[in-house]
Amino acid sequence: MDFDVAYEGKAKQLILLEDDRDHYVQRFKDDATAFNGEKFAQFEGKGALNNAISSFLFEKLEEAGVLTHYIERRTETDMLIRKLEIVPLEVVVRNHVAGSLGRRTGLKEGSKVDPPIVETYYKKDELGDPILADVHIKMLDIVDDEELDQIKQAALRVNDVLQPIFEKAGIRLVDFKLEFGVDSAGAIILGDEISPDTSRLWDIESGDSLDKDVFRYDKGELIEAYEEVAERLGVEV
Amino acid sequence: MDFDVAYEGKAKQLILLEDDRDHYVQRFKDDATAFNGEKFAQFEGKGALNNAISSFLFEKLEEAGVLTHYIERRTETDMLIRKLEIVPLEVVVRNHVAGSLGRRTGLKEGSKVDPPIVETYYKKDELGDPILADVHIKMLDIVDDEELDQIKQAALRVNDVLQPIFEKAGIRLVDFKLEFGVDSAGAIILGDEISPDTSRLWDIESGDSLDKDVFRYDKGELIEAYEEVAERLGVEV
Repeated sequence: MDFDVAYEGKAKQLILLEDDRDHYVQRFKDDATAFNGEKFAQFEGKGALNNAISSFLFEKLEEAGVLTHYIERRTETDMLIRKLEIVPLEVVVRNHVAGSLGRRTGLKEGSKVDPPIVETYYKKDELGDPILADVHIKMLDIVDDEELDQIKQAALRVNDVLQPIFEKAGIRLVDFKLEFGVDSAGAIILGDEISPDTSRLWDIESGDSLDKDVFRYDKGELIEAYEEVAERLGVEV
Repeated sequence: MDFDVAYEGKAKQLILLEDDRDHYVQRFKDDATAFNGEKFAQFEGKGALNNAISSFLFEKLEEAGVLTHYIERRTETDMLIRKLEIVPLEVVVRNHVAGSLGRRTGLKEGSKVDPPIVETYYKKDELGDPILADVHIKMLDIVDDEELDQIKQAALRVNDVLQPIFEKAGIRLVDFKLEFGVDSAGAIILGDEISPDTSRLWDIESGDSLDKDVFRYDKGELIEAYEEVAERLGVEV
């Protein structure tokens, strides 16, 4: 091995750089997991697709003035990122009802969420990533009120930037998960990835899934769906 | 039958009064259910105990200026109440970690929640009473922001009144569930019941449960526990 893994996730690795303590290499794996790790498979090329799509979207966000950890796409599977102290929240933005939001509210799958909402989940595998209300975030001392407000505002801003990009590609951005971190100066920065692994993307015409639900619910070929997303967005893989 | 049941709940009935459209009789049943109805039993005398304890606590709250639906205790099992349009939220106040709060946060059972928190659950059996964040309450249009704020403030006020009453009785008020309603003038009023069925009450010395957990987790004799609560509070059944 010519590198040290600082963090091994389910779909990504963070790799330490020699003589550079401010950055990581974020490597996208071909592994796919679902249902909190119960379902597992590998798809050749998924890592490269997610790296390409995520890099493309981070660039769009940076252009729109959103602070992200993205520096550049290095190789097919590798992205250079700024090192952040990750906030242990999964921040979910929802434009349409799907998944747990339907089970929680009884509202019909696909119905519009207007205005879009931001949900927060505790990033803790051993607890099953439970949903948290603001009072829980406060009692767990995860972030303070001001930081939480900044995170929610940033998540909605990301949505404002991404929604029209997907819409132009004929894709409905149903929902997506973000993770944020704090940089050495204490600023809230968007981290992690934005890809078909971490979002629900539906073909606007057919309603077909073009995201990890293809794998979760055996809806077809995952790589074909991800390639379709990349192609429609104009992303070179 | 000499009465019409307007609403049949798991542990209570609401009975219509002839020539009085502003009130109900709330009748406490001996039925006990747990785990969303999966576990079921009957305990002779539970209805009378819950009616007595609940009446006692509502009287204390009224004395402290909290608006409730309570009018008077009518018979062993019956309470006269004001008719409300019930808000479909289960409002939970927590002073110590127990139950789902421990599973959600990973915090140790029994550890202090300081300051106390208010959680909101969707009162919908068919969905399993899921927890809701403020954004869900808003999107479901259950109450508006101001009403939600009033409900949370009222729940904390109820806690401020009840905690010292239980503490003097050597009982730790770990958590409890409230339901609110709206009266014909649009005011937010405390409804439902406050009893060992709807709260976690622990003996301060021994930590023993004196509430429905005795039934949920087969910890002993339910009626003995409820009688102990009534006796310590000075409630005449």
